[in-house]
Amino acid sequence: MTVAGLSDARMAELAVPVADGDVTDESLQEIAARAAWSSVAEPGDGAAGGVVAALGASATMRLLSSRGSTARIRGLCEEQGLGEITEAVLSAWVSGVTRWRSRFDADAVVEAFGRARSSGARLAVPGSPSWPSRVDDLGVHAPLALWVRGRALAGEFGRSIALVGARAATGYGEHVTLEASSGLVDRGFAIVSGAAYGIDGMAHRAALADGGTTIAFLAGGVDRPYPSGHTALLARIATTGAVYAEVPCGVAPTKWRFLQRNRLIAAASAATVVLEAGARSGSLNTAGHASSLGRPLGAVPGPVTSVASAGCHRLLREYDATCVTSAAEMAELAASGSSTDVGGPGSDRPSRSVEAEQILGALSRRRAASVSELAEATGLISGDVQAVLGLLDLEGTVRESGGGWTRV
Amino acid sequence: MTVAGLSDARMAELAVPVADGDVTDESLQEIAARAAWSSVAEPGDGAAGGVVAALGASATMRLLSSRGSTARIRGLCEEQGLGEITEAVLSAWVSGVTRWRSRFDADAVVEAFGRARSSGARLAVPGSPSWPSRVDDLGVHAPLALWVRGRALAGEFGRSIALVGARAATGYGEHVTLEASSGLVDRGFAIVSGAAYGIDGMAHRAALADGGTTIAFLAGGVDRPYPSGHTALLARIATTGAVYAEVPCGVAPTKWRFLQRNRLIAAASAATVVLEAGARSGSLNTAGHASSLGRPLGAVPGPVTSVASAGCHRLLREYDATCVTSAAEMAELAASGSSTDVGGPGSDRPSRSVEAEQILGALSRRRAASVSELAEATGLISGDVQAVLGLLDLEGTVRESGGGWTRV
Repeated sequence: MTVAGLSDARMAELAVPVADGDVTDESLQEIAARAAWSSVAEPGDGAAGGVVAALGASATMRLLSSRGSTARIRGLCEEQGLGEITEAVLSAWVSGVTRWRSRFDADAVVEAFGRARSSGARLAVPGSPSWPSRVDDLGVHAPLALWVRGRALAGEFGRSIALVGARAATGYGEHVTLEASSGLVDRGFAIVSGAAYGIDGMAHRAALADGGTTIAFLAGGVDRPYPSGHTALLARIATTGAVYAEVPCGVAPTKWRFLQRNRLIAAASAATVVLEAGARSGSLNTAGHASSLGRPLGAVPGPVTSVASAGCHRLLREYDATCVTSAAEMAELAASGSSTDVGGPGSDRPSRSVEAEQILGALSRRRAASVSELAEATGLISGDVQAVLGLLDLEGTVRESGGGWTRV
Repeated sequence: MTVAGLSDARMAELAVPVADGDVTDESLQEIAARAAWSSVAEPGDGAAGGVVAALGASATMRLLSSRGSTARIRGLCEEQGLGEITEAVLSAWVSGVTRWRSRFDADAVVEAFGRARSSGARLAVPGSPSWPSRVDDLGVHAPLALWVRGRALAGEFGRSIALVGARAATGYGEHVTLEASSGLVDRGFAIVSGAAYGIDGMAHRAALADGGTTIAFLAGGVDRPYPSGHTALLARIATTGAVYAEVPCGVAPTKWRFLQRNRLIAAASAATVVLEAGARSGSLNTAGHASSLGRPLGAVPGPVTSVASAGCHRLLREYDATCVTSAAEMAELAASGSSTDVGGPGSDRPSRSVEAEQILGALSRRRAASVSELAEATGLISGDVQAVLGLLDLEGTVRESGGGWTRV
């Protein structure tokens, strides 16, 4: 059986040099198929995630090159010993898989494995030693595979905290981040962040300076340091900690991939703290993911006269974030989440689905977007987009006007 | 019938020139007796409040000069047509009244009325035009009477907000207070505060500068401007707004009276906002009262590097205060309380009784206090002090050590 010129065996062979930990021949095939999928579907695609969860990655890959018909899927379901599947689910699965067909490129898959090998990246899947198990809480939106540069981390994610914030940081924000990161390292925490300029960079640097473990999640491939000004910083992070990405090596970051990368930062960490953020900072998206997942969410207040702290204050007001003013309070916040698997601050308010967060992330306040544009941007099926927009409309979060939908 | 040389008729005569609004002969007697009580019992004394609520102020005053025996109270209960009263309640009432006996001084009562007359103060009781009806929510701890200097306020308390904070304000705190007070006046709010230096003073001044109504509650008599540096400010407040006090004219403020004054600020206003406060600022006591009463409570964040904002951050963390960053958000906060009479932010957490707040206010973190010292400081009966300490001990808020009780 080959997928557009790439046999299962060939993919497994490509995966051997990069697989994270000890793997069997059988699991290698599945690992390779997951990696191949991650070069086809966009990160966080729930439809693909659902099919892979049901049929396995190899079978889902094979659907790409077959006609991907309902009959074919029904056959695969029988092979997998799955019970009765409704027509609606089958048809959703078909469209979930086949809409990515045009993006499959065997050469790109081979190249991604080659780049990974030459840049020393490893490939982790659920169960691999380097897999951050908390991301499984994302359900069908969990990553299928993760590429890792750096040290093999074991328990580090257990006691980890995401320190994030705006690129446009002030001296105040940087100072607060330095103190927080350093104090949390002293308390045995690994510092997770996004390697951006400003708050993220300071969080990583302070952790490195104190000899702590720090972990970066990138929106592009782990072999493409981004921003390029942080190439040396990312190399240092990989020496003692690790750099993760969901997309294969060589892939460029995009707006959508940044938003999806944010969900990994929130999901992989025991708690998320926003240290300084303007009212529209991307770090609020990370905070939204943490809140949706029921992870403890903290925000560091700042002067109300500083627009650079307006986003943090919004989190305190609208997301029920906990006000944290010191490393000790952040450590306490992270501990508050461990006792209850879901729950913690923010769990009282109705949490939005990952789809809703995706759509909100893709909507603008000014330019109206059509349902099909939103479906394309989010990788969701039009029907799902419409259903979620309806709910958000009821919430008063989005509005339909002449040309399409905007955020309120 | 005379009370230690002061007949009901004589007291009513004294009250005539200061009574707020139109009153009948009969209500004058009751008003005068409430005023006389307020020169005997300490503000907020729940035992006296309970007896006055049941028997009326005149009858309670007469108990002072009689032996105040259980038999005498039982007789009064019958006169008032009250139903069956248990021995325990009767005995609590006797001790509630008689422990103030030694403080009754007919000359002091006469002098207080004279001072009020000459300083242009009026005497308000529940139902008077100047009475802030929200204070009735304090129950047995509601004031029996209030002395007022200034304009007769009618609906102003309806749309009022307490802006409070530390005396040791920074430029940041003063700036934020100026903006808040001015913006709230623009939105039609009356500004309630405590006339202290720092945040309180700025709240009053900004309201006056914008031609708004502002109201000060003092811990001493309204004829004793405190702090003396705010004599002119208080005179200006009385010109367009009003200055209130629970204690009669001539009475000096004490620590206990400041704490009780704080309960009036919180109770009289639709919402309370702390603008800048250190970790041990007295304004946190006002916030505690607001929270206990289920009034919306807001706190303005500041830099976490500023000790002057540590109290505000504590309110956000521990009291579930709402983060407010602008006058618009404060107006919204006040509106959130109107829809539900009790409730609003903070109503989820178990609220402390007024007694508990009194005892906490009287406890120190360093010097241990005995039950009898606490009873004296709070005007509560020893048995009540002990019961409340037990509850606070369970909460982990207080601790008993060798010599007595301390706050944790």
